[in-house]
Amino acid sequence: MEELVGLREGSSGNPVTLRELWSPCPRIRRGIRDGLEWLKQKLFREGEDWHLLMTLGVLMALVSYAMNFVIGRVVRAHKWLYREIGDSHLLRYLSWTVYPVALVSFSSGFSQSITPFSGGSGIPELKTILSGVILEDYLDIKNFGAKVVGLTCTLASGSTVFLGKVGPFVHLSVMIAAYLSRVRTKAVRESENRSKQKEMLVAAAAVGVATVFAAPFSGVLFSIEVMSSHYTVWDYWWSFFAATCGAFMFRLLAVFNSEQETITSLFKTSFRVDVPFDLPEIFFFVVLGAICGILSCAYLFCQRTFLHFIRTNRFTSKLLATSKPVYSTLVTLVLASITYPPGVGRFMASRLSMKEHLDSLFDNNSWALISWNSTPPWPAEPDSQNLWFEWYHPQFTIFGTLAFFLVMKFWMLILATTIPIPAGYFMPIFIFGAAIGRLLGEALSVAFPKGILAGGVTYPIIPGGYALAGAAAFSGAVTHTISTAILAFELTGQIVHALPVLMAVLAANAIAQSCQPSFYDGTIIVKKLPYLPWIRGRSINSHCVTVEHFMSCAITTLAKDTLLEEVVKVVTSTEVAKYPLVESKESQILVGIVRRDQLVQALQAEPPSWAPERQQCLQDILAGACPVEPVTLQLSPETSLHQAHSLFQLMNLQSLFVTSQGRAVGFVSWVELKKAISNVTNPPAPK
Amino acid sequence: MEELVGLREGSSGNPVTLRELWSPCPRIRRGIRDGLEWLKQKLFREGEDWHLLMTLGVLMALVSYAMNFVIGRVVRAHKWLYREIGDSHLLRYLSWTVYPVALVSFSSGFSQSITPFSGGSGIPELKTILSGVILEDYLDIKNFGAKVVGLTCTLASGSTVFLGKVGPFVHLSVMIAAYLSRVRTKAVRESENRSKQKEMLVAAAAVGVATVFAAPFSGVLFSIEVMSSHYTVWDYWWSFFAATCGAFMFRLLAVFNSEQETITSLFKTSFRVDVPFDLPEIFFFVVLGAICGILSCAYLFCQRTFLHFIRTNRFTSKLLATSKPVYSTLVTLVLASITYPPGVGRFMASRLSMKEHLDSLFDNNSWALISWNSTPPWPAEPDSQNLWFEWYHPQFTIFGTLAFFLVMKFWMLILATTIPIPAGYFMPIFIFGAAIGRLLGEALSVAFPKGILAGGVTYPIIPGGYALAGAAAFSGAVTHTISTAILAFELTGQIVHALPVLMAVLAANAIAQSCQPSFYDGTIIVKKLPYLPWIRGRSINSHCVTVEHFMSCAITTLAKDTLLEEVVKVVTSTEVAKYPLVESKESQILVGIVRRDQLVQALQAEPPSWAPERQQCLQDILAGACPVEPVTLQLSPETSLHQAHSLFQLMNLQSLFVTSQGRAVGFVSWVELKKAISNVTNPPAPK
Repeated sequence: MEELVGLREGSSGNPVTLRELWSPCPRIRRGIRDGLEWLKQKLFREGEDWHLLMTLGVLMALVSYAMNFVIGRVVRAHKWLYREIGDSHLLRYLSWTVYPVALVSFSSGFSQSITPFSGGSGIPELKTILSGVILEDYLDIKNFGAKVVGLTCTLASGSTVFLGKVGPFVHLSVMIAAYLSRVRTKAVRESENRSKQKEMLVAAAAVGVATVFAAPFSGVLFSIEVMSSHYTVWDYWWSFFAATCGAFMFRLLAVFNSEQETITSLFKTSFRVDVPFDLPEIFFFVVLGAICGILSCAYLFCQRTFLHFIRTNRFTSKLLATSKPVYSTLVTLVLASITYPPGVGRFMASRLSMKEHLDSLFDNNSWALISWNSTPPWPAEPDSQNLWFEWYHPQFTIFGTLAFFLVMKFWMLILATTIPIPAGYFMPIFIFGAAIGRLLGEALSVAFPKGILAGGVTYPIIPGGYALAGAAAFSGAVTHTISTAILAFELTGQIVHALPVLMAVLAANAIAQSCQPSFYDGTIIVKKLPYLPWIRGRSINSHCVTVEHFMSCAITTLAKDTLLEEVVKVVTSTEVAKYPLVESKESQILVGIVRRDQLVQALQAEPPSWAPERQQCLQDILAGACPVEPVTLQLSPETSLHQAHSLFQLMNLQSLFVTSQGRAVGFVSWVELKKAISNVTNPPAPK
Repeated sequence: MEELVGLREGSSGNPVTLRELWSPCPRIRRGIRDGLEWLKQKLFREGEDWHLLMTLGVLMALVSYAMNFVIGRVVRAHKWLYREIGDSHLLRYLSWTVYPVALVSFSSGFSQSITPFSGGSGIPELKTILSGVILEDYLDIKNFGAKVVGLTCTLASGSTVFLGKVGPFVHLSVMIAAYLSRVRTKAVRESENRSKQKEMLVAAAAVGVATVFAAPFSGVLFSIEVMSSHYTVWDYWWSFFAATCGAFMFRLLAVFNSEQETITSLFKTSFRVDVPFDLPEIFFFVVLGAICGILSCAYLFCQRTFLHFIRTNRFTSKLLATSKPVYSTLVTLVLASITYPPGVGRFMASRLSMKEHLDSLFDNNSWALISWNSTPPWPAEPDSQNLWFEWYHPQFTIFGTLAFFLVMKFWMLILATTIPIPAGYFMPIFIFGAAIGRLLGEALSVAFPKGILAGGVTYPIIPGGYALAGAAAFSGAVTHTISTAILAFELTGQIVHALPVLMAVLAANAIAQSCQPSFYDGTIIVKKLPYLPWIRGRSINSHCVTVEHFMSCAITTLAKDTLLEEVVKVVTSTEVAKYPLVESKESQILVGIVRRDQLVQALQAEPPSWAPERQQCLQDILAGACPVEPVTLQLSPETSLHQAHSLFQLMNLQSLFVTSQGRAVGFVSWVELKKAISNVTNPPAPK
């Protein structure tokens, strides 16, 4: 078309395009075109990639929904099989156990055969990635399929294995985000790419949570609390946008598939709104928080110890190293045998799915008070209208089953977390907390059967409210987050318990944070991933520590006038990734940084010319093959530990050189910082 | 007692204290004492001041509640006066107008006579303080009384002046926090104090919001979004703790005072829970968000322009400078005359208080559909059961009154923000947004009178849901925050509209943020407070800009070997606060920083000894009276604009020196950064 225009213009001198001659109202059309162009410029402004974030949200919602759909079908098939197989105990037992065992061993074998990174939740690794460490291949899109298939199998084995979805979903979401941002920024310079990519990854983590729970607020806040130590309000904005797109799409699909009338929350509750709780109940909510905090410490300690044991014990470590599916099979068989409903499973409501567990625990009524008067039956199948019948046992009563559930699930959960399959550990903890809260709530409803007197009307105590608070408090304590409170509200669609739940969460966190590292930090410690601890306690002496006290002075500088011979010697004798380049051997003034790999390349490319007349020195090869990186940030010996720590955390740094009056005098990396922080927090005993 | 012990020990050799002889079970007592000591150490660990934060929350809650109490009494007295004064129009008009005029002029006169800092909301100033600028005396506790009294008077004038409470409350809270942390840390070193103080101030801002709205979540998130550009998760934790204490105490007082049965939200709504909205309504929610975004841009533009006009116009600026109460009186008289209920006020529901405004706008029913069938009366006084009668006019209908309300309040609000009294501007904006939403909601309920068909049942459209979304979206757009959505849920105690409200807020923010600075940023710009803008657009060229391009090279270095004569010359001819100290004139190697004031002192203290044998140089006085501060952070010419920007924002810096290979070559402060950012965002036109 452009050529045609050119032709016409050339022949007549009056620039009219063919298209203009053909179509009416050229001005209006041009106006519209300009308007569209303006809109396009405004929307697709360089550097703002809301469309990528939207794509990410929609994609993850589709994946999440499709996964739920498949899982639902597989679980239904399992239920059908278990129901139809007849009354023979052996057959029933086999149909109950073989299904999850097969699924989990397949999940373990399949995902591990494709990539070793697909196991676990992935959040600890993402935390270290977001703090600036580069874990090669961990975000490779190739692992996506393995993790999706593995996770689907894990979740399809249902409440037997009792594992969740959040962690792997965050990992999946971040994988897609990394892929999308890599595709987009082929042409863009690296420095921009890095900052943009971080933005994308932070938002992706929020999307991961939001598309599992259809909860954009808690998605954003939870991912911030778990992943980052610092965040920028700008990232927060984009995270909200992406998470909302994801959550909306996820719920939209449910409406389109006629599962829901309209967009609602996942675990809708119907707590009384008028007087949901009385003022003195606040005390019990805080007590519940404290109990959850103490139990979470016990859980975290046992979990970390057991994980460490599994990794160091000769037998299990060998089994895990060579034949992961065998280990998975064994563990799943144990778990499935215990949950076999006509056996021990009868006492722990094992016929309920995880969603049904939550639905029943958040139930409005007091089971204890109802079962006081009439004995509910144990139906042949869980009654969807009265899910709580599963929790009732004539001899044990509901207190027995709830307590038994807590005791058994405590170690079963710890055992389940060691299975090398893609699985999330948040949801089981959430349900465990709900059971704690329910137990206390039921006890209170029995202790105070007259309930609350307000305005002349008596209202019974709602144990479901305690279950809600317990879920938020226990999961908050285990993960060291507060946003689980908002998650509880978003999941149930009710916010009437706002203050008591928040207070329970705060109480639980106060205890857990002062005694144990979080679930994710604990995993980081056991897996020995690099991470930077907080400066806790903030005692006075931490402010006296400066870089001078902890920097590593053992640096090998390369002077511009170093002879190539010596450079070769230095390069072969040391193993660092970067060398500080100094002006001359005497002055030691830092002028730049030379990367070891590039230096080695340059040295190899350089023809050896050991001519006696003039020996080549480092400066001669710097101009060519080996570029000098500028020093953009540097520390001084007087920089305080706090400043250095903030700098590393905020700018996602790996290492920095220390200069004093321009001279390179030392070097600080994570290792030095970590040591300094641990010295400040736990001062070494004086000898 | 210790002496007595010593005496006994000396005489018998067996160390038994008198107390031990007197009291039974010394071991148990000692055990208890040790336990208490351990608990005390654990709780009052050095550097963790949860007790200060709790005190802060409780104090602010008390202040907030007491203020509400007094305001309630004053407003009731005004209502009584207006009711009892008889039917004479003149008397009624006088009783309506004189009251607010007197209150506002007193508020203006009283608070301004004590301190000029007490006017306005205070949030813009706090924002600059939290970003590292030191505004002298702004947080002085002496201003507390002035602001409290002034704010009480402002709020007592009710919906006539139509101003809120949040901003000043944040300021009050931060004042107390600054006072508390100053009292605590008399002994602690400065560096720790600074970081701890920031923690306290951030938490205090959250407490301010939380104690006004009894909303801890949105208190924390709103204060983060408004105040900070970066946030540490550690601060977030403490903010939640303090905000929860404040919000709990605030609501507890209401229960103790028998205003409430139990702890509930402030503006409790009773929206339908089953099917609160249909899927297609999401579209209208987003449209509402877009409308709110556009209107917020208009509001922000007009507000900023008018404020600028008031400050530059010869007449008004003179009036404001010399006699603020006169200006306040005039403006309040205009506002009160317009809201006179038998006059124009009839068409804008001016008899309702601000709380009643919100309560009525969040009403469950569709006014349009009800008034279709029956004409509600205009009662002699607002009917607390049917507050919406105030919004109905037989000729105008509710659409007319709502539209009139919006048009009038638009400029009245802008006018009210110029009155120099302590006042918050968030609540009026929130109500304004609710009215926008209500108007759209009512229109929809008329357009679709058949409502929503779901599961065979028809549900009417809830205009109150639109009012909620409108309030969140408009206030979010004006303040550039998203957490107003959570605020809307916490205020109403219902979260059923989670997704639509969030989508409306995002849509409104997308428009407002891309067109106008926020309300607080706009005030910062008009008041010419120092602040650092974001690097917007993030275009590619912003990543090529390095410190070299924008640093100020005009630095005056002082060499150690400079003669005192020359030093005096330099000090008298320049006006900077800090001088870079370099090793020698030739090398220009930066070794430290000398403060001007200390240098001047040292020079004055030095006896003039212009002896010919040896001239004194700078080095001689450095050891004594004038200390050299170490350089803890420095920039390189190669540091990118983005890095420098992050560094300034994250570490709350004022200025940094630039060194190249150790030599001091330049200087970067906010001024240079701001200029560089504005050049990147709006590149200067090529000449």
